[in-house]
Amino acid sequence: MHVLIIGGGGMIGRKLSDRLARDGRIKGREIARLTLHDVVEPAAPAGAPFATDTAVSDLSVPGAAEALVADRPDVVIHLASVVSGEAEADFEKGYRVNLDGTRQLFEAIRAIDGYTPRLVFTSSVAAFGGPYPEDAIPDDFILTPFTSYGTQKAICELLLTDYTRRGAFDGIGIRLPTICVRPGKPNKAASGFFSGIIREPLIGMEALLPVSDDLRHFHASPRSAVGFLVHAAGIDGEAVGPRRNLTMPGVSVTVGEQIEALRRVAGEKAVSLIRREPDPTVLSIIGSWPRDFATRRADALGFTAEADFDAIIRAHIEDELGGTIAV
Amino acid sequence: MHVLIIGGGGMIGRKLSDRLARDGRIKGREIARLTLHDVVEPAAPAGAPFATDTAVSDLSVPGAAEALVADRPDVVIHLASVVSGEAEADFEKGYRVNLDGTRQLFEAIRAIDGYTPRLVFTSSVAAFGGPYPEDAIPDDFILTPFTSYGTQKAICELLLTDYTRRGAFDGIGIRLPTICVRPGKPNKAASGFFSGIIREPLIGMEALLPVSDDLRHFHASPRSAVGFLVHAAGIDGEAVGPRRNLTMPGVSVTVGEQIEALRRVAGEKAVSLIRREPDPTVLSIIGSWPRDFATRRADALGFTAEADFDAIIRAHIEDELGGTIAV
Ligand SMILES: NC(=O)c1ccc[n+]([C@@H]2O[C@H](COP(=O)([O-])OP(=O)(O)OC[C@H]3O[C@@H](n4cnc5c(N)ncnc54)[C@H](O)[C@@H]3O)[C@@H](O)[C@H]2O)c1
Ligand SMILES: NC(=O)c1ccc[n+]([C@@H]2O[C@H](COP(=O)([O-])OP(=O)(O)OC[C@H]3O[C@@H](n4cnc5c(N)ncnc54)[C@H](O)[C@@H]3O)[C@@H](O)[C@H]2O)c1
Repeated sequence: MHVLIIGGGGMIGRKLSDRLARDGRIKGREIARLTLHDVVEPAAPAGAPFATDTAVSDLSVPGAAEALVADRPDVVIHLASVVSGEAEADFEKGYRVNLDGTRQLFEAIRAIDGYTPRLVFTSSVAAFGGPYPEDAIPDDFILTPFTSYGTQKAICELLLTDYTRRGAFDGIGIRLPTICVRPGKPNKAASGFFSGIIREPLIGMEALLPVSDDLRHFHASPRSAVGFLVHAAGIDGEAVGPRRNLTMPGVSVTVGEQIEALRRVAGEKAVSLIRREPDPTVLSIIGSWPRDFATRRADALGFTAEADFDAIIRAHIEDELGGTIAV
Repeated sequence: MHVLIIGGGGMIGRKLSDRLARDGRIKGREIARLTLHDVVEPAAPAGAPFATDTAVSDLSVPGAAEALVADRPDVVIHLASVVSGEAEADFEKGYRVNLDGTRQLFEAIRAIDGYTPRLVFTSSVAAFGGPYPEDAIPDDFILTPFTSYGTQKAICELLLTDYTRRGAFDGIGIRLPTICVRPGKPNKAASGFFSGIIREPLIGMEALLPVSDDLRHFHASPRSAVGFLVHAAGIDGEAVGPRRNLTMPGVSVTVGEQIEALRRVAGEKAVSLIRREPDPTVLSIIGSWPRDFATRRADALGFTAEADFDAIIRAHIEDELGGTIAV
């Protein structure tokens, strides 16, 4: 089978292609070919048992999507996206890439007669906005995003369902929790500290905490995100039913609980590297984010995440730090 | 103030312009000018105390929206839409008119510096899809439409909220119940019988009933629909808050209850003109429609509909039959 990953050069795309290279198959079906696409040249995974080719284009440019699906990949995993902050700063670019790029992809597939690939789309819990219920947000809660990025994701979810219903492709949309611990350098995203307060201390660096310890949010590891994608790529569409978008499972913890987990996994020294520096701007953004989800549908369909935040930290240590802690 | 009605030549648009002609104002503000737009020449209301001009164009054609908002109407009421059946039969046309036409309108307004009109958009309860809660559908229930039309409405709702949040305009989306009794001739819409079993008997004509008496649905009169639009045009946006789309109030009744109301209002003779002819195709479409809504937000914001189905029938007799029944 031929797998196409659009936006495959990003954080999740790289980890996904490594996983596919290791597994060589999705749900028992052998991968014969992998096409990695991104707007910048993506790196092919090492040691893959299948042929990997790369494609470079801006998905939002007319014709780009048509070229990508022309030789009918069996599974299309669509990760390409302008991130939240950029979509907020550049209204036009956000809509062009996140909405029009996705719609052009959907149209390009619809235009090919008799071609109905599995299409996996990565939505986000940013598609939700408050006021939230007291308890965990259920699967049938309204999507009222507070950002243009969240709006674009929610719109693509609706398109995905309609295109699937009309038989254009067999789509599954997965709403990812905030991915934590995000590997790499600290960045300026408002949510960066959720990963920073774990990632930096584990390599002996100081990390700033701009919010109070009681702030609660919903996380899954990059490893789980890759697991969701592989599971979505192989899942029985009939079992999913007409509601094609699913909130993925995750771990709901307060920042204080994140820190307690870090203490248990890495000790007091790591925790001492977290410096509290309240930032009202960050709080005003993050304060409106969802805190917890009841993911009954995804759970029933076999999607799984870490059981607790300790496991999220351990996954980071195993996958990014070769299993050892520097502090 | 200058009011623009897009799709103003349709059923609701005509009734709305008649009402504006009678009132001469919206929420105390005098109407100085009304522009009626449609793809076919719309009729200006009789006896209006303000100047009415008409504009004819296809909203989905590039440039049409720009021309409509060029002289900055204070209130834009957007009714233009391809109906459900047509959007289902013609995928491209539905998306072109209902999604792209609306988006081009939103973009045209956004492009004008310092111009933030009140924009009223007519969404539909067709933006919902099952499974529904046991009880009435609450304001925070997810939108998972079963039709392309419902998908296009749900997408426009999301755009409306984001454009409002970004300050492009001051948008209010109203989800209309099924409008009943729809005046005019019988049509081939699957939902046509909801109006037909009242409208036809009241003028001594036979009406077909293709579903069973226990089917429940949610209705409001054309008069109420016009009332919602006028209320939305004048409402305080701050009071509405960030969730800019509201399910409008209506009357939830079974077909049997509709018939009992007809009996009370028009007598046994009218009821005897309803002929039961079950149609599995109609049932398969209508059976998945929502049955009841708890419209707390709209109620609290002062939107009002009929109290019962008798009042819906009486509104039809007053507004369409000059107050008298032929049977
Ligand atoms: N990481 C998270 O916390 C998170 C949470 C929710 C949802 N998501 C979604 O998951 C997906 C992958 O996330 P990620 O963390 O790997 O993001 P990422 O930013 O690391 O990767 C996205 C990739 O898309 C590419 N891209 C951007 N614009 C493009 C265009 N016009 N044409 C082609 N490629 C383009 C980028 O170059 C990048 O490589 C995204 O859709 C994201 O919105 C991520
Ligand atoms: N009547 C209902 O039961 C109901 C229920 C829910 C929502 N709505 C919505 O309310 C609005 C008005 O409904 P209505 O019953 O008056 O419908 P209608 O069909 O009578 O009127 C719609 C008008 O839009 C015009 N139009 C269609 N395509 C156009 C285009 N490309 N450019 C310009 N004009 C175009 C049509 O010519 C028509 O006059 C619609 O948006 C409809 O979707 C109606």
